[in-house]
Amino acid sequence: MKKVNIGLLGFGNVGAGTYETLYMNKSHIEKEAKVDIQVKKILVNSLDKPRLVEAPQELFTTNADDILLDKDIDIVVEVLGGVEPAASYMKKALENGKHVVTANKAAAADQFEDLVSLAEKNKLTIKFEGCVAGGIPILNAITTVLKANQFDEILGILNGTTNYILTKMADEGLSYDNVLKDAQEKGFAEADPTADVDGIDAANKLSLLMALSMGKYVHPSQIPTVGIRNVTLEDIEKAQQDNKTIKLIAEAKIKDGQLDYSVKPMALDNEHPLARVKNEFNAVFVKGNAVDELMFYGRGAGSLPTGSAVAGDVLRTAQIIASHRR
Amino acid sequence: MKKVNIGLLGFGNVGAGTYETLYMNKSHIEKEAKVDIQVKKILVNSLDKPRLVEAPQELFTTNADDILLDKDIDIVVEVLGGVEPAASYMKKALENGKHVVTANKAAAADQFEDLVSLAEKNKLTIKFEGCVAGGIPILNAITTVLKANQFDEILGILNGTTNYILTKMADEGLSYDNVLKDAQEKGFAEADPTADVDGIDAANKLSLLMALSMGKYVHPSQIPTVGIRNVTLEDIEKAQQDNKTIKLIAEAKIKDGQLDYSVKPMALDNEHPLARVKNEFNAVFVKGNAVDELMFYGRGAGSLPTGSAVAGDVLRTAQIIASHRR
Repeated sequence: MKKVNIGLLGFGNVGAGTYETLYMNKSHIEKEAKVDIQVKKILVNSLDKPRLVEAPQELFTTNADDILLDKDIDIVVEVLGGVEPAASYMKKALENGKHVVTANKAAAADQFEDLVSLAEKNKLTIKFEGCVAGGIPILNAITTVLKANQFDEILGILNGTTNYILTKMADEGLSYDNVLKDAQEKGFAEADPTADVDGIDAANKLSLLMALSMGKYVHPSQIPTVGIRNVTLEDIEKAQQDNKTIKLIAEAKIKDGQLDYSVKPMALDNEHPLARVKNEFNAVFVKGNAVDELMFYGRGAGSLPTGSAVAGDVLRTAQIIASHRR
Repeated sequence: MKKVNIGLLGFGNVGAGTYETLYMNKSHIEKEAKVDIQVKKILVNSLDKPRLVEAPQELFTTNADDILLDKDIDIVVEVLGGVEPAASYMKKALENGKHVVTANKAAAADQFEDLVSLAEKNKLTIKFEGCVAGGIPILNAITTVLKANQFDEILGILNGTTNYILTKMADEGLSYDNVLKDAQEKGFAEADPTADVDGIDAANKLSLLMALSMGKYVHPSQIPTVGIRNVTLEDIEKAQQDNKTIKLIAEAKIKDGQLDYSVKPMALDNEHPLARVKNEFNAVFVKGNAVDELMFYGRGAGSLPTGSAVAGDVLRTAQIIASHRR
């Protein structure tokens, strides 16, 4: 069997999960992709740090060019987080003939058009599944088998931290500040929770979802965004009295030919499929002109679930590489 | 652009929905598949019957061989229902160099191994998305991007008629007989509801789901199957008192290396994602060793939702044809 070599940029939570998924289910992946898959190099900050998952020491490097300029590497998987240097690395990979898979929504949403046009120019692919809703394979579905649909509505619970906080407030009657503190202690929320609680993370994801399902790219900074800092227990109790549940909703809707979009707390009717999505789970609800209502539900974060999404993109990319080599 | 010709076997509910989806979203599909798609012929029982969707009269034929032996037809879409002659037509199509897409779970589940091995022998594809859970793109996800997972649990609400009946019984306190009669009057249940209420339809779908996600084919007749005829209002009320909801569940589970499977009414905890799936909706819950819990929810039947699934398979098949012609 032909070999496909992977270079991994980053070996944190998602990088380690990707590595683990690729090797845990190696035989399944290779049987499907009909190529041999191998992680050839991994970019890290320090060669001496303890790892979340074990990998041979000789794979690690602190020099990105060992991956970006290695002629034997076919796919660069970028899981660094943050806009730079991640975006520049992805561009350099595409300029050097490598397909790209990323789970880094900040970089992908910020530079979506540049990345996609660079990939097209070089007849390469760039895939984003791990950027949106963790393990839920929503982007693949929307960009392939659901292509025979026009989507006029997307509603998503795209951030696990805020959904966890809102769930605990509603179910246990705890205040925002108390739940946030508890979530930080348990590792469900960052020490600086700004990107999550202010809706920035959800806006990044909505930007990618709109671009890939509706063909309309909006920079995340242009998406009207309100987070959950000001959601009070009183708001939640009032919603409950009306048989509603408050969720942080990323929404894109075509109304009279006009695309409206926002990230904000919304009171959903309890019968709505998204109302029952609890704790750190994510879900995406879409409405297509043929398929009508669809909802995808699953783990929106985490090492292995996001690793599963990245591995799925690696598999699809490996299939494309294999078909070109035939 | 190159042209891909489709022959449609059947123009009932699903056939008409497929035709409508393919033409309603033709530009989307062709942009993605990078080929021109055209329905060339449609097999019907009678040339004079009124149609659910309009199509040029010259497309219709009552002779299957006009499609199965037409050298210009690339993809045969089988949406006839029933095991025969549907299965024989699919085999003849594969023997004559045509890719097959089917939404006919009875024929597909009954002859799965023969159909798949015939397709492999002739280097063709056969796709089944429309057979399981209507518009929900579960088979595509499981057989492509989720391939980097091993699945040890599948739970599905795979039959809309029985879910509608159980929902009405639970929410409105009506008896099985009364709801069934009402459903038949509204067209949600067939005059002879056996295949639905006795779980046969769900067993066909479970057979395909297991084969495609766990690599283990079990003939539907070998799946222990109990329908909902004997579910009483008392059963439902007792479940409600225990915070549970009775659903007809198709289940496949690997336990101690052993695959267990069944279709039967089960009382699910109200917190389970499947417990809130109401009326005619379907949902499939899977657990993978990387992605963990996932649920897909949507319309499990209906002309356009199932048409969307078939059109998605047509699109993927057209992409394969286009890549071979390069």
